[in-house]
Amino acid sequence: MSHPPDREGTPLSDVQALRWWRHYRSADLPADLIASITLTALLIPQSLAYAQLAGLPPEAGLYASMLPPLIYALFGTSRLLAVGPVALASLMTATSLAGVAPGSYALLAAWLALLSGLIRVVLALLRFGFIANLLSHSVIGGFIAGSALLIVLGQVPAMLGLSAGQAGGWDWLGQLARTEPATLVLSLVALLGLLAARHGLPRLALRQGWSARTATLVNGTAPVLVIIGAGLAAWAWGDGRIATVGAVPAGLPPLGIEPVSWQTLLGLLPAALAISLVGFVDSMSVAQQLALKRREKIEPDRELLALGLANVAAGLSGGYPVSGSFGRSAANGLAGARSQIANILSAGWMVLVALGLGSLFVHLPRAVLAATIVAAVASMFDWSVLRLAWRYDRRDAAVFVATAVAVPLLGVLDAIGAGVLLSLTLFFWRTGRPHMAVVGRVPGTEHYRNVRRHQVETVPGALAVRIDESLYFGNIRNVEHRLAVLLADAGEVHHLVLILSAVNAIDVSALQALDELNRSLGAQGVALHLAEVKGPVMDKLIASGFIERLQGRVHLSTHAALQVCRGVVEDYVI
Amino acid sequence: MSHPPDREGTPLSDVQALRWWRHYRSADLPADLIASITLTALLIPQSLAYAQLAGLPPEAGLYASMLPPLIYALFGTSRLLAVGPVALASLMTATSLAGVAPGSYALLAAWLALLSGLIRVVLALLRFGFIANLLSHSVIGGFIAGSALLIVLGQVPAMLGLSAGQAGGWDWLGQLARTEPATLVLSLVALLGLLAARHGLPRLALRQGWSARTATLVNGTAPVLVIIGAGLAAWAWGDGRIATVGAVPAGLPPLGIEPVSWQTLLGLLPAALAISLVGFVDSMSVAQQLALKRREKIEPDRELLALGLANVAAGLSGGYPVSGSFGRSAANGLAGARSQIANILSAGWMVLVALGLGSLFVHLPRAVLAATIVAAVASMFDWSVLRLAWRYDRRDAAVFVATAVAVPLLGVLDAIGAGVLLSLTLFFWRTGRPHMAVVGRVPGTEHYRNVRRHQVETVPGALAVRIDESLYFGNIRNVEHRLAVLLADAGEVHHLVLILSAVNAIDVSALQALDELNRSLGAQGVALHLAEVKGPVMDKLIASGFIERLQGRVHLSTHAALQVCRGVVEDYVI
Repeated sequence: MSHPPDREGTPLSDVQALRWWRHYRSADLPADLIASITLTALLIPQSLAYAQLAGLPPEAGLYASMLPPLIYALFGTSRLLAVGPVALASLMTATSLAGVAPGSYALLAAWLALLSGLIRVVLALLRFGFIANLLSHSVIGGFIAGSALLIVLGQVPAMLGLSAGQAGGWDWLGQLARTEPATLVLSLVALLGLLAARHGLPRLALRQGWSARTATLVNGTAPVLVIIGAGLAAWAWGDGRIATVGAVPAGLPPLGIEPVSWQTLLGLLPAALAISLVGFVDSMSVAQQLALKRREKIEPDRELLALGLANVAAGLSGGYPVSGSFGRSAANGLAGARSQIANILSAGWMVLVALGLGSLFVHLPRAVLAATIVAAVASMFDWSVLRLAWRYDRRDAAVFVATAVAVPLLGVLDAIGAGVLLSLTLFFWRTGRPHMAVVGRVPGTEHYRNVRRHQVETVPGALAVRIDESLYFGNIRNVEHRLAVLLADAGEVHHLVLILSAVNAIDVSALQALDELNRSLGAQGVALHLAEVKGPVMDKLIASGFIERLQGRVHLSTHAALQVCRGVVEDYVI
Repeated sequence: MSHPPDREGTPLSDVQALRWWRHYRSADLPADLIASITLTALLIPQSLAYAQLAGLPPEAGLYASMLPPLIYALFGTSRLLAVGPVALASLMTATSLAGVAPGSYALLAAWLALLSGLIRVVLALLRFGFIANLLSHSVIGGFIAGSALLIVLGQVPAMLGLSAGQAGGWDWLGQLARTEPATLVLSLVALLGLLAARHGLPRLALRQGWSARTATLVNGTAPVLVIIGAGLAAWAWGDGRIATVGAVPAGLPPLGIEPVSWQTLLGLLPAALAISLVGFVDSMSVAQQLALKRREKIEPDRELLALGLANVAAGLSGGYPVSGSFGRSAANGLAGARSQIANILSAGWMVLVALGLGSLFVHLPRAVLAATIVAAVASMFDWSVLRLAWRYDRRDAAVFVATAVAVPLLGVLDAIGAGVLLSLTLFFWRTGRPHMAVVGRVPGTEHYRNVRRHQVETVPGALAVRIDESLYFGNIRNVEHRLAVLLADAGEVHHLVLILSAVNAIDVSALQALDELNRSLGAQGVALHLAEVKGPVMDKLIASGFIERLQGRVHLSTHAALQVCRGVVEDYVI
């Protein structure tokens, strides 16, 4: 399955489907068909539930499950990624639109999808996907943990049968006494059923000797069985005490989007940007994990484009921001999907559901959707990042915890900002003080080691300093300062040798500082030498003219540099 | 002059004066006295001029030249740095307070000094000075160039004798026809006189064989001679056409500061933060340059503290934000200053001037102060950074130009923010795609080189990849992606060897990615090996438990790694 590289391809080459379609074997179709049924069984309750989480009517979830996965299938590079409504984007939609009047809520949610889609398309065309790198694992891990907590807490009132305001509000706490017993029972039964299906079934299947695929299929149909059962129960009770989803307009999504003011769009921009980046990072990590297992190639820039177009489609077809779903993509893979055909078929099933079965949702209890959300989100808590960070670097663990705590405290958008700011600060703090060592010769060898750790010989009149980090604006002032201190403490020095074996790059700020160092040392009769300069760094130093201006020389090895210094020093002494 | 390190010292050890006072020789006093006179001759016109630039009455400039240099002399680590009113901080004050009512303008300027001082003190105590590293040379260079342009343009109306609104406003353009001839002549004569004193005198002195110190003294008194001459001229003309500074209240600065609302303080915070960082970076680079020439040690954290306290003093004594002046510090050094005694004496002279000579300023033309500013600011244009950036890295040159252009377009505060954002983006873009090379063995040697550049031998079933950059959240996703592509293209592979000779650090995000890579490769029967891991990196990998989980092994050299892979591969084959 290796294709010629076409990074510089024509626009048509961006249609990934044209590439895999040629290789598609009809023998793969049954597997994709079975996977599509599993996918749909997961997608029906999740699309309704996530729409509820996003504060939208159920049809918004259904609509977001039709065109977007289809568009992703055409442009995406992952064979398994299932794109559609997801918990994180739903929560971010709800919090971004908190306070918007009900009348324009759905419209703005669609605009949010359209905007975040366009942002991704532009970033992809500019090949600017790297800005998602600003979100470190600790930030994204903490953000997801905090969001999951917020989502679970937000479902409690619905599971208790209480009415609540915006997501994350606490106004229902005062009404705890009014908990609706029938709703509570239904929620708990549904939640336990779903959790048992996820965690109990696999073990049972293993004991019974079922194949992984059979287990996945049974597991996959559980959510649909739960909501059918819950719908029947609510219909049997049927006295209106249990809040239900209500009528869903049958039919296909409306195409197009009503205009809004520029001011409104500008107001949505920060949220759209945050959704773009978080959605991209989250989706990419899912796609990458699945791809590694099957030796597939995921192209980040193409993924950004495909996700962008999928969101544009969501916005133009009555949906709201979509992303790659971890749970559904994994289930898709376990169910044996071979290609995006599974997702395309699943989108088709969703159209049939919307056309024919919408009326069945009239009796679907909202509390059961809340239970569906809680069950799905429970798997979002991934403490492994935190555990690893705790063992490896406490400060990174602090970034995780701070971002998680910031989600309920500051809201999702500011939490992302605060997390990025914290991890950037930490990064600058870390790389801002690179390790530097004055080195001397291990007697009888050509090896040079830290004078503080080893018994080594130094050359009188020469100071050799190894710098163990690339030089850039974030650390060059610190390096400058410490070199000045070393020189001030070194007494009579005629040669300063900088050993650059660990310096992978030197930026303009660092180059300027070296230039100034060279000049001011030269004025005092001290020659600046460089040793063990890496090839690419040397090329750039030569091109800049710095090497010509250098008062000392460039040496292949520290030993060569210090031999030269020794000779010259003896010249001075004589 | 080497002192024992006392980084962990007591609060009293922060009083640097206690350290150098003990070593002060009375023989140094004459030199310091002469330097203090040069300093004062520069300081009188500059303090009045910069106060005018900041939109403040002249006494604010005088007051800012008394206590702040005294406080800096006590706590600072530079022997030469002259702290007081400077162009950049004055401009930033003016633009930060644009729109403030005249009644509370001076008060808010004092609060700005107090706040920016407290911010620096807090940053110093937290040892957070590294955040100034966010300002790359290109950003600060572009910012200074843009500010200098803004300052020069802002002085034009005063030099033409026109009244103008806020700094940087263009409302005077419509009044060009009303240019005041006498004022214009006076401005031009003063400007030419000042520029000639700076650029013509040194050459003249050289030709006449004067000593550098004599030349500096003559040069140093020129500004005072110019303003005395201008004052006499304005007094002789004396018909009120030439706008003058007016009466300056004689006496010492008032101590204390009137309270303002919390809301007002919060509003000043962004400006105070920007002034803190820019002032610190600018001042440090001046101090560092002077110190390198004399092998002195500048301690950044102590400098931050000293500048912070100097600004607190400025705020509490009717001044406004102060910083280290490049021009005055250099003149101080050239005039032979040995210690901060020169600055302390100069502060004393300024008190005498304020007490006795204030009434002389009544006739001092504002136009001549504007000429003083233009002459001083002309030396702020430093194109060497831009030239170097242009040759070395065009993108850095673009950051310089963008920041410079942003100063008049967005205003000084947003320009700083935009510059930092740009250089961070550039940094992430650069380090986000590290150089990686698949390597093979140079036949007959133990050297391994890029397979694309050299004729080398590879081991079947093993893939050896060298990564030429530290691994962190900003590049790990790109590395992950490219490793996946290399693996997908490599066909049958049982060993992946990562050569980490250029990896100075691995952060938690990168570690987690390596962990996932190790796990998913292991599931496919591919062993992940590491080679040439640096000591500190290895220590951290062991501590995290990663080495235990590693499916392959850690090898001292690439050669050792591939020898092992070759053996194991043969095992598989047999």
